Amino acid sequence: VTIGSDRKPDAADKRKQEPTYASLQMPIQLARDSLCALHIQICEQIRSLIEGDRLRPGSRLPSSRQLAEHLAVSRNTVLVAYQSLAMEGYIEAREGSRTVVRDKEAGDRPLRPSLAATPPASTTAIRRQPVVFRGDPPRLVNFGRKPIFDFFVGRPCPRAFPLRAWRRLMLQRLASAGPALSEYQNPAGLAELRHTIADHLGPARGMNVRPAQIVIVNGIQEALNIVSRLFVEKGTQVAIENPCYQGALSTFESYGAEMLPVPVDQHGIRTSELPERPVSLIYVTPSHQFPTGETLPLDRRQQLLSWACRVGAYIVEDDYDSDVRFDGPPLTALAGLDSSRTVIYLGTFSKSIGASLRLGYLVVPLELAEAATAVKALLNAGQSWLEQAVMAEFIKSGGYARHLNQIRSTYRARRDCLLSSLREHFGDVNISGYDGGMHVMWHLSPDLPDAKSVESTALTHGVGIYSLRSAVAYDFGTTPYSERSLVLGYTALQEEQIREGIARVAAALK
Amino acid sequence: VTIGSDRKPDAADKRKQEPTYASLQMPIQLARDSLCALHIQICEQIRSLIEGDRLRPGSRLPSSRQLAEHLAVSRNTVLVAYQSLAMEGYIEAREGSRTVVRDKEAGDRPLRPSLAATPPASTTAIRRQPVVFRGDPPRLVNFGRKPIFDFFVGRPCPRAFPLRAWRRLMLQRLASAGPALSEYQNPAGLAELRHTIADHLGPARGMNVRPAQIVIVNGIQEALNIVSRLFVEKGTQVAIENPCYQGALSTFESYGAEMLPVPVDQHGIRTSELPERPVSLIYVTPSHQFPTGETLPLDRRQQLLSWACRVGAYIVEDDYDSDVRFDGPPLTALAGLDSSRTVIYLGTFSKSIGASLRLGYLVVPLELAEAATAVKALLNAGQSWLEQAVMAEFIKSGGYARHLNQIRSTYRARRDCLLSSLREHFGDVNISGYDGGMHVMWHLSPDLPDAKSVESTALTHGVGIYSLRSAVAYDFGTTPYSERSLVLGYTALQEEQIREGIARVAAALK
Repeated sequence: VTIGSDRKPDAADKRKQEPTYASLQMPIQLARDSLCALHIQICEQIRSLIEGDRLRPGSRLPSSRQLAEHLAVSRNTVLVAYQSLAMEGYIEAREGSRTVVRDKEAGDRPLRPSLAATPPASTTAIRRQPVVFRGDPPRLVNFGRKPIFDFFVGRPCPRAFPLRAWRRLMLQRLASAGPALSEYQNPAGLAELRHTIADHLGPARGMNVRPAQIVIVNGIQEALNIVSRLFVEKGTQVAIENPCYQGALSTFESYGAEMLPVPVDQHGIRTSELPERPVSLIYVTPSHQFPTGETLPLDRRQQLLSWACRVGAYIVEDDYDSDVRFDGPPLTALAGLDSSRTVIYLGTFSKSIGASLRLGYLVVPLELAEAATAVKALLNAGQSWLEQAVMAEFIKSGGYARHLNQIRSTYRARRDCLLSSLREHFGDVNISGYDGGMHVMWHLSPDLPDAKSVESTALTHGVGIYSLRSAVAYDFGTTPYSERSLVLGYTALQEEQIREGIARVAAALK
Repeated sequence: VTIGSDRKPDAADKRKQEPTYASLQMPIQLARDSLCALHIQICEQIRSLIEGDRLRPGSRLPSSRQLAEHLAVSRNTVLVAYQSLAMEGYIEAREGSRTVVRDKEAGDRPLRPSLAATPPASTTAIRRQPVVFRGDPPRLVNFGRKPIFDFFVGRPCPRAFPLRAWRRLMLQRLASAGPALSEYQNPAGLAELRHTIADHLGPARGMNVRPAQIVIVNGIQEALNIVSRLFVEKGTQVAIENPCYQGALSTFESYGAEMLPVPVDQHGIRTSELPERPVSLIYVTPSHQFPTGETLPLDRRQQLLSWACRVGAYIVEDDYDSDVRFDGPPLTALAGLDSSRTVIYLGTFSKSIGASLRLGYLVVPLELAEAATAVKALLNAGQSWLEQAVMAEFIKSGGYARHLNQIRSTYRARRDCLLSSLREHFGDVNISGYDGGMHVMWHLSPDLPDAKSVESTALTHGVGIYSLRSAVAYDFGTTPYSERSLVLGYTALQEEQIREGIARVAAALK
């Protein structure tokens, strides 16, 4: 866009001349598809005009409003450009909101490298250090077109969010917050919340932990980073379930870990295939294996603990969704059986309450607590105070226990609905992982197409059911779950949606 | 603690005998100074008694309440131990809340490795992978005895927190949150907040950025981690101011960076001493150098930008407290002068509103946005939704601008009070960094002791004023600021506290 480029600026020759009004004809060309910001383009071109004496001292610039109108940019863009030029000493504001080019001889135009030395606006030639980060973060959000009936994993029911209690406790804590809102807090987390979680983990998971072992984190993903920074460097041996949670795998790998996949069967990780050599960490999901949903039985738990002590490994127990357990008493966590300070436990409120609270916790053997807190402090100095305070109060008041009972019964009904819908349309279906957690795995019978085909057929009919790699899971090579198993999260869908979704899949596959 | 160890349990010989009540005399010894949790000690010792046939099948265990009383532990501890033993098949609950040892022949005691293979309770012998993390996180919280008048850096005034607006907006956003509270969000942050920040940065910093360049982070500390993961590996060359912010230094070093200190003088970083060789990153605080408080003048800004383009470095601009500017228009950020996509900008609401909100932002050249978001997603999947939504609304409603005006005038008065108190007691004091920001540096006159001595004298009189290394700053070797300069944050203290604090220091030094 050239403004009045046919008329050259009528620059005056005299130094002390009265301001001219030629400047709306300044030959400014804006490249709107350039990566260079518009205000910088304006600033640079006016600067060139002044440096090249095409805009002489005393020349009056158009008002920011006028120039913005002419260039079809926001007034702010021009203001910012003018501000930069004023800071650099090229122009100045005079009385009556006139902006004029300053006198070079005034001597107070700042030192400025010659334009030749100024970095060019187009910088493809500058060779900068390339990005060294290699990592494939878990894709927990679907940015594409969302299916109408979406059985994506790990989504709590939005309607189950304890909104009234949360609002009440938030107002309570805000009212008495005092300096807590403005000051940095202990990076390990709010003492009150750490105490409350320690108390909760006794009856809920059979764990006996001290508050000092707990670090409040942004979620399990952050806990995995803390564990990695504690133990993983280039070449560190890390064992993992196969198939596994892709987010964990990617995190360890991003720090240079060498991964050792251990197969999973209908009882979870096959402890008989654990490598009998030094291993630093092993990542497991014993309560509800991700993605198969199986629960690791007691004998394998004991074998796993013994093995970890033999080879010198810490066990990372990711207990992402075991708050949801449909029958019988709560499962004792692996960490609850641990008598050798072998288990690092990861818990979260993302599944039980809501992912956008960003609250989870890491429980480490006491001797690692200080180092884990140091890593948390280096990563980000701690979690938001208010969310921690509200969560502590929510647990202490009994609200959390009531909430868990409520979602257990809601989710049990949804699971039952999903299982009966699948049976209704597909007969004697083979399902794993239905005792608890928030998703099941459906192992397709031979008369059905493979998982990828079912996934894409379903999607064209508005239903999201996911093959292993589409469900934030990963398989090394081909596992028994790679090609003929689908992952179905059911907790965010209401029963009629579950029924309709499965009916659509059935109709589409006929 | 041995309970009734003088009386051996009177174990019966018959299999089907009636429960005995001898078990309160179980020889349980708790080592309270052990790292092994009490419930595990109880569980293991009862298990040994059963395995060793000292507690026979059918024996009745004391109630959890009785045993807890006898061992002087919480009832929960015993419950957890009993639960583990029940899960393992050693004991069972019978009618009338009796707990008895199960019959071995019943066949349903689970497979369990022999005790010999079980990891020992004391595990000093287990050689585990050592912690590889090396890093010294910034100490932003004082866990020791707090001085009565604490001039620690970077603390906003607790009373200035916009509590009423925050509460109102929080209720508003909560009411219309819908699924936003329960679902994972874009890890780059709430689109609405990123737009709002982009709009804010135009007039406030002379920056013209697109929302796509912005990643919402937990604070500047997290932004430094994202930048490090993008660019730093073992041996990466990173230039930094000397003296500098210790948190930035430690972060880069923890990822293996080789640091190149560049001296600072009364105009900020000395651009004439920048190393003329390939450097990956340079970390600077041009608005208010940390810790000296100097503002980098325009000529050095240009030199810095030119140098960065010559050597291929990205400039990391930490703009931690430039929202507080006492005179004149807001400073244009270095990022606002950047026409070569050279500057990575770090901003925060920790200083302007409150540190425990944990909200900051990273502005990167567009070509780095995708990688920066990937790192954020891998680190922790994003910030809390509600805080982001409230902050967006707070800015859009004009509340933030009003808040900034308010704190500017409050803090200006406090700065004036500090300067006049220092002059009153110490005469013609040499102070730097008083044009803006939230702290100043006091360069001690020759008649006063050195900074460390003044610091410790002040502390014994209840006043916290800090020498360089005590103020989250770091110096490589000895700088002009190392031994005779003190850092004084004044924004969290009221004027009478400032006057009294400085008067105390003066009295103590007489």
